[in-house]
Amino acid sequence: MSIFLFSDFGAGDLYVGQVKAVLGRCAPGVTSIDLLHDAPAFNVRAGAHLLAALAGQLPPDSVVFAVVDPGVGGSRKAAVMEADGRYFVGPDNGLLSVVAARGLQRRFWHIAWRPDRLSDSFHGRDLFAPVAAWIAGGAFPGPKLAPVPGLDVDLGGEDLAEIIYIDHYGNAMTGLQGSTLARDARLVSAHRHLEYARVFSEVPGGQAFWHENSIGLAEIALNGGSAARELGLEVGQHIMAVVSG
Amino acid sequence: MSIFLFSDFGAGDLYVGQVKAVLGRCAPGVTSIDLLHDAPAFNVRAGAHLLAALAGQLPPDSVVFAVVDPGVGGSRKAAVMEADGRYFVGPDNGLLSVVAARGLQRRFWHIAWRPDRLSDSFHGRDLFAPVAAWIAGGAFPGPKLAPVPGLDVDLGGEDLAEIIYIDHYGNAMTGLQGSTLARDARLVSAHRHLEYARVFSEVPGGQAFWHENSIGLAEIALNGGSAARELGLEVGQHIMAVVSG
Amino acid sequence: MSIFLFSDFGAGDLYVGQVKAVLGRCAPGVTSIDLLHDAPAFNVRAGAHLLAALAGQLPPDSVVFAVVDPGVGGSRKAAVMEADGRYFVGPDNGLLSVVAARGLQRRFWHIAWRPDRLSDSFHGRDLFAPVAAWIAGGAFPGPKLAPVPGLDVDLGGEDLAEIIYIDHYGNAMTGLQGSTLARDARLVSAHRHLEYARVFSEVPGGQAFWHENSIGLAEIALNGGSAARELGLEVGQHIMAVVSG
Repeated sequence: MSIFLFSDFGAGDLYVGQVKAVLGRCAPGVTSIDLLHDAPAFNVRAGAHLLAALAGQLPPDSVVFAVVDPGVGGSRKAAVMEADGRYFVGPDNGLLSVVAARGLQRRFWHIAWRPDRLSDSFHGRDLFAPVAAWIAGGAFPGPKLAPVPGLDVDLGGEDLAEIIYIDHYGNAMTGLQGSTLARDARLVSAHRHLEYARVFSEVPGGQAFWHENSIGLAEIALNGGSAARELGLEVGQHIMAVVSG
Repeated sequence: MSIFLFSDFGAGDLYVGQVKAVLGRCAPGVTSIDLLHDAPAFNVRAGAHLLAALAGQLPPDSVVFAVVDPGVGGSRKAAVMEADGRYFVGPDNGLLSVVAARGLQRRFWHIAWRPDRLSDSFHGRDLFAPVAAWIAGGAFPGPKLAPVPGLDVDLGGEDLAEIIYIDHYGNAMTGLQGSTLARDARLVSAHRHLEYARVFSEVPGGQAFWHENSIGLAEIALNGGSAARELGLEVGQHIMAVVSG
Repeated sequence: MSIFLFSDFGAGDLYVGQVKAVLGRCAPGVTSIDLLHDAPAFNVRAGAHLLAALAGQLPPDSVVFAVVDPGVGGSRKAAVMEADGRYFVGPDNGLLSVVAARGLQRRFWHIAWRPDRLSDSFHGRDLFAPVAAWIAGGAFPGPKLAPVPGLDVDLGGEDLAEIIYIDHYGNAMTGLQGSTLARDARLVSAHRHLEYARVFSEVPGGQAFWHENSIGLAEIALNGGSAARELGLEVGQHIMAVVSG
């Protein structure tokens, strides 16, 4: 059993190691795998759509620690969700809700348990990590959870017509699922109309296009360079899909 | 048993993997966890205070590989330290000395052993990693070590009134322990007076404040943005704590 | 047994975790170690020389997942190579060929197998990861491979007189092997003549020099600062070695 980690804690920063120290203590022998720790900081909506795309790649019985938590220390609840066999542990602030809305079989809990020592700013380490570890270790902490009918914050399962992530190559992922877009659709961003290509090598060097990327999202890319830099793309920019003719 | 890694080797750079290759060879089955590899480069003093704050989060029998080593290849000694049950392996250049000064039960050794092949610039891989691995694997390499009464370089256990680390959100950690500061104290940096708040959500958006962070340090933060960028903060800047009244 | 990962996928990006999810599914219990994920993007030649230098540090029976793959989705073949006991899995685009040219005992295969679901842009996850995992797990997938006499793309084993990598300290690694350079040779880059020093501490602060680094490459460094920034060095720049006298 593996725990997959998704957060905005920063891959190079000092937070992830502290989470893993707790996971290792609460679930010895369980492997943790970093999915992404550079989700757009504080951006719950972008994170929710990225998480939904990535979750589809994971084994059916995965446990996912998912924390983008700008409201930590405030009144948002802490949640556990089971969606089609996968368990998700994180804040009830919308982050888990796109996965939820697209799932078929779902169950929800709020975390009633509090650790003896709960920091004000790092529930990832103090609250979510132990709960995720217990689930991954095979000891579902039922008595520490309260079943609830749904999440408090629900962003819905609809596509998001925005840029939600820019990778280090400069490819700009949108919240539009590639499976829902006709191949003759154009993506429009900042007055640029971009056509579909299956792979980078199908377009001339330096030309921008859109394709369905490896996690199923429509992505703006550029053969041999950074689409984000060349086109001035940023997370949060609106994208329009236009069907020709 | 886990080995925790703390260094300035760069989380994305090609050094950490080489260290882990050695750890895996010398201690198969021991897990290594990256605490931080982007400690301020070459900055032993900042690293020593960060390490002391992070070490408090670790299980009591941890082994910590701690290497910020600008003098590698020179005359500084290589050290092993036991402090209150935790083992630390790294250069005797001050890096381990804040942990030492704040510890109760301490023992110290210099590493007399040298590997057959010792590079001039990467003792982390060639010297410290094997020693840390042997300790974590349960085979304390006593005959390879020489007991010493203390470390050669001692920075002391006092707080450090400086910025010692800036995280990727832009929060600026100081070397002041939050437990030693009255909550009505102000932190002064570059002529800005900052008041205390418990959590981000207690201050208006865009306002800077200080709080005790999740590793016990006084930290300058800003609700909804980067304190470092807004206030022009950098590692090494002096911070003054002023008690009101 | 460990799988070592070498790529340009970005250490902080969302690709490596997906690879590890596949490795964990196809070879439970096999440890994966990140050697480098910030190899110069799309730069097969620099990657090939870096990989050859790093591979020399690995245990003799290692499995190496090596993917810098700008032609993914095009016509390049997928390869498995055994070189002196180590297995390499990656694209046949030159990336493995410097290791090959410098090896003594080599065997080569093209990967005939295709997974049920093969993305156009991420063969690292869909094709190379399962094959690497099977090999590391002890089940060499012979029936899925076709033996070939050599690689399609061969860059040769000669040194490369260029900067191939700049680390986060600002040290600039060249494709020149330190063992082939006389210690009185000078490296010339952008009209600067740099002399040899064994370690940083042998030169005055702020002075640039070259040394043989910990993976055996001639590297341009600067005591107490970033050689790359001070000298304006970039990956791809030509380096000339001049023997005095």
